[in-house]
Amino acid sequence: MSQAGTSASSVEVSIAPAQHPLRIAIFGFGTVGSSVARILVESKPQGLELTHVFNRNVARKRVDWAPAGVVWSEDAESVLASDVDVIVELAGGLDPAGTWVRKALGSGKSVVTANKKLIAFHGIDLERLAQNRGGHLKYGAAVAGGIPVIPGLEQGLAGDRIERIQGILNGTCNFILSKMETGAEYAPVLAEARAKGYAEADPTEDVGGFDARAKLAILMRLALRVQIDPEEIVPRPITEVSAVDFSYARDLGCTIRQVARAEQVDEGKGGHLAATVGPMLVALRSPLAWSKDTENMVIASGRYGGNVVFSGHGAGGHPTAVAVVSDLLALAHGSRRVEIPSAPAHVGAEFEVPHYIRFLVMDRPGIVAAITTALANEQINIRAIVQKPGFPAHALPFVVTVEPCKSSALKRALDSVRTMDCMLVSPLDMQILE
Amino acid sequence: MSQAGTSASSVEVSIAPAQHPLRIAIFGFGTVGSSVARILVESKPQGLELTHVFNRNVARKRVDWAPAGVVWSEDAESVLASDVDVIVELAGGLDPAGTWVRKALGSGKSVVTANKKLIAFHGIDLERLAQNRGGHLKYGAAVAGGIPVIPGLEQGLAGDRIERIQGILNGTCNFILSKMETGAEYAPVLAEARAKGYAEADPTEDVGGFDARAKLAILMRLALRVQIDPEEIVPRPITEVSAVDFSYARDLGCTIRQVARAEQVDEGKGGHLAATVGPMLVALRSPLAWSKDTENMVIASGRYGGNVVFSGHGAGGHPTAVAVVSDLLALAHGSRRVEIPSAPAHVGAEFEVPHYIRFLVMDRPGIVAAITTALANEQINIRAIVQKPGFPAHALPFVVTVEPCKSSALKRALDSVRTMDCMLVSPLDMQILE
Repeated sequence: MSQAGTSASSVEVSIAPAQHPLRIAIFGFGTVGSSVARILVESKPQGLELTHVFNRNVARKRVDWAPAGVVWSEDAESVLASDVDVIVELAGGLDPAGTWVRKALGSGKSVVTANKKLIAFHGIDLERLAQNRGGHLKYGAAVAGGIPVIPGLEQGLAGDRIERIQGILNGTCNFILSKMETGAEYAPVLAEARAKGYAEADPTEDVGGFDARAKLAILMRLALRVQIDPEEIVPRPITEVSAVDFSYARDLGCTIRQVARAEQVDEGKGGHLAATVGPMLVALRSPLAWSKDTENMVIASGRYGGNVVFSGHGAGGHPTAVAVVSDLLALAHGSRRVEIPSAPAHVGAEFEVPHYIRFLVMDRPGIVAAITTALANEQINIRAIVQKPGFPAHALPFVVTVEPCKSSALKRALDSVRTMDCMLVSPLDMQILE
Repeated sequence: MSQAGTSASSVEVSIAPAQHPLRIAIFGFGTVGSSVARILVESKPQGLELTHVFNRNVARKRVDWAPAGVVWSEDAESVLASDVDVIVELAGGLDPAGTWVRKALGSGKSVVTANKKLIAFHGIDLERLAQNRGGHLKYGAAVAGGIPVIPGLEQGLAGDRIERIQGILNGTCNFILSKMETGAEYAPVLAEARAKGYAEADPTEDVGGFDARAKLAILMRLALRVQIDPEEIVPRPITEVSAVDFSYARDLGCTIRQVARAEQVDEGKGGHLAATVGPMLVALRSPLAWSKDTENMVIASGRYGGNVVFSGHGAGGHPTAVAVVSDLLALAHGSRRVEIPSAPAHVGAEFEVPHYIRFLVMDRPGIVAAITTALANEQINIRAIVQKPGFPAHALPFVVTVEPCKSSALKRALDSVRTMDCMLVSPLDMQILE
């Protein structure tokens, strides 16, 4: 058996050399779906044939540039029952997409998907199903769209031991935060993001960190080789970040990004696995600060190879479609993945890094004393206390930065001052990535 | 036939599921070779077994941490005739490495190599040989060491049409130029690079651009899908760059890097293929300026996916070894490459970009008039003429920048002033990448 899977029941399956082109059904003909079709029509990659498009109310989706033979259908079952070889699932979400994917894999078809949620929550089961029935599941488009992070981890870095993975995985948040860097407040930038189609009417999935969390969970499996329940990662929203934080961050040589990060500390020596998603200070000179607009970035830190940075357009129709078509080509060419073994694990949130804490208070004597005492009680060393001039005493923002400390200790310290009646909002603490 | 090779004689070959671990022989036990062995011993990746090490005078190479069963040999023929499955060729150069690789592939073994020169000049033939005899040839370590650019292009970007590829592909040059950025002159920095082991006693391969040229030729095949003769690319050395150029570059919002770049202009519309290697001005805000020290970087610009940036440690024992071990894992798992079709092509040097031209003259009246007339005769628009104060009239450096113009037109203009007796050195022209 040549595959290194951990599942004892995995079956060695080899794709027979395709005697005919792969027959492809696209499920979901939105921006990405039509970009996939566009590339298939324009570039004519060898061995791929678009045969079916499924969408609700498919008539309004029909395009005149698609090959004449394409079947346009609003009947998922009939397409799943047809002779297509691969379902390209671009509907997103757990259901009904999950049902379609299971049916397709269950009948021995292969699936290419951009569905990060489905893969984050059910990827292991779906891969097992694919293996058992002779099909393949590929999801290069699920994380960081057009940036080949997943093939990079599976093929190019398989020989390393990745100990940390950090990413800017959500284009909406990156657009908002890199705009706020220039002085704008959150609300108007969110409105602009909506107007440009970068943010949903309800932006919670993005700004709340849930989208990035799903992607991080997928990367953790490939990079850190752990199978986790994504819900064990508690994301922190970027909604509390305000223009004043960017101003303070700049004084510290930093900017602010939504970062998803996970690390395996002291593996095998009673170490632990930690992961988190939320706004963080990143040094202006670090790669994480390079990402502007809706760009994505992933930094994999390997024991042997050091840091490898991948960056580019993480979302959008065309870049995501490139990842889908690349996966289709891999299927057509019988390219098997390097199976990276992974094992179930629990994930905590304990990091040991410097922190930025911004308070917004109604000024009165004793506030700094109370805060510094609370930090001292947890053995946390203060690096700096900064208060910029020009703010009114009744709504005064000031910042405390602390030396590397355990996330749990900082939480206890802040919990003890959070309820002081001078606190206008809960203190905003962010990791500082130097 | 599932492979999209252009060769009609290509044979569909499938690796049988390995019933035993892949038996591996390392040819060349220097820095990279011992790092490969180290990873195999420490990480114990499934399905890989180090069985042989070949090196001249192998006794002095023997290490006590290698598995007891490893055969240490200085007889290449006997190792090639043994039952090993894969030769890891790390000797470098065209010969005898090429002979060993041909013998191994000819007898149906697979080869993993970091040998950019061999792949740049003979990769197509060697791949054909591998296909015909049932072996595989992998060379992920040949370009940008530990950065998974080759799997990224083969697997993750296969669905795009890459129109331009730009890279910082030589760690020695990047070390020298990123040090010169801080004000140092070439000669002492080269001496430092030698002391640190980053530069050879004869640094011509690196500073002359030959190493980067070989790597560019490999990337052009995978990214632009062209098979070229590397010698059609005329590299320009970084040796003419001096501290004063960095000073002028900074005033232009740029720094200087050795860049290898190639583009396919107007493909299929009577367009042309251009490639060059040499020192260039890169905008400080562009990714190319991020690379410091011996880091490497590759930017692939796709018609659909836009720019994708890969960056990290391009050389060194451990990062290069990661790429080798990843290739070995791909072989052990039967992961076939997506065959990217490529066709023979000729390559020119015609770009149309802005240029920086630095003159060093013995000052006298009429020099600027002669230069501007020469440029005007070629219809080249001047962007700026800059002369910093503080230099003596008998050795006066000054700079002319010009709007985008054809490389050939600029060459004609400069050829007409190059021999003026006031010119102390030949004018140094560099592309400006904005």
